[in-house]
Amino acid sequence: MSAKTNANVIIGGKVYTLSGYESEEYMQKVAAYINMKINEFEEVEHLRRLPAEMKSRLLELNIADDYFKEKEQAMHLEEDLEARNKENYHLKHELVSFQLKLEDMEKALAEQEKENKELLLAKTKLETALEDALLGKVEPMGKK
Amino acid sequence: MSAKTNANVIIGGKVYTLSGYESEEYMQKVAAYINMKINEFEEVEHLRRLPAEMKSRLLELNIADDYFKEKEQAMHLEEDLEARNKENYHLKHELVSFQLKLEDMEKALAEQEKENKELLLAKTKLETALEDALLGKVEPMGKK
Repeated sequence: MSAKTNANVIIGGKVYTLSGYESEEYMQKVAAYINMKINEFEEVEHLRRLPAEMKSRLLELNIADDYFKEKEQAMHLEEDLEARNKENYHLKHELVSFQLKLEDMEKALAEQEKENKELLLAKTKLETALEDALLGKVEPMGKK
Repeated sequence: MSAKTNANVIIGGKVYTLSGYESEEYMQKVAAYINMKINEFEEVEHLRRLPAEMKSRLLELNIADDYFKEKEQAMHLEEDLEARNKENYHLKHELVSFQLKLEDMEKALAEQEKENKELLLAKTKLETALEDALLGKVEPMGKK
């Protein structure tokens, strides 16, 4: 874990010293976000006039709402990711079985090609032999 | 969009009437979450003794931190999801090309098998013809 960071941030016009394991950049980002929320409130007449305690509560509710929205979003993404991971698993599985099928097919084809070559050779030899026999180069066995 | 909901929630021991388009269940969930944060603070001696304004600010920072953590989590999930989507796209692409290869292979194999059958038939015929010729069933052409 990184060392503790101290950072001065301004929130609602006041300086606060934050201390934590996050980077100063992160702390400034969080402070800027809260200031943005405060400014949003200050721009609305009826919110600006609320008592400080009420304003704080509203601010907390508003930020908590952002948190829950983001949490829900993350939950949906997790579900999507899980579904996609399952799909990925099945696709990989299917690919492997296709790969095996292809390999079997390649073997079968190679065997057929070999057999084909042998048959062709045998056929050629037989044709020559038959031609010879028909031309009388070979004495018919039955007429010895 | 659903109708506006009014819900009485208790936060920090006080009743607030929330009004919004979320369900009452959601509003109670958000209130319960803030109460949990308040209780966490109340359990820590030096936090309990802080002035109210400081407490509110700390609470806001704490909730905002949860928000940013969840946001970061969602961002990572989105990246993971995008990567998985890309991978799945490629896997599907590969599957299709395997499918086509398999189909080509099946055709080639069927052709080879047909050719082999024909060759085998031709060979058998030639063997019979040669046997006949050698047995003298057929007069050698040269000896007519």
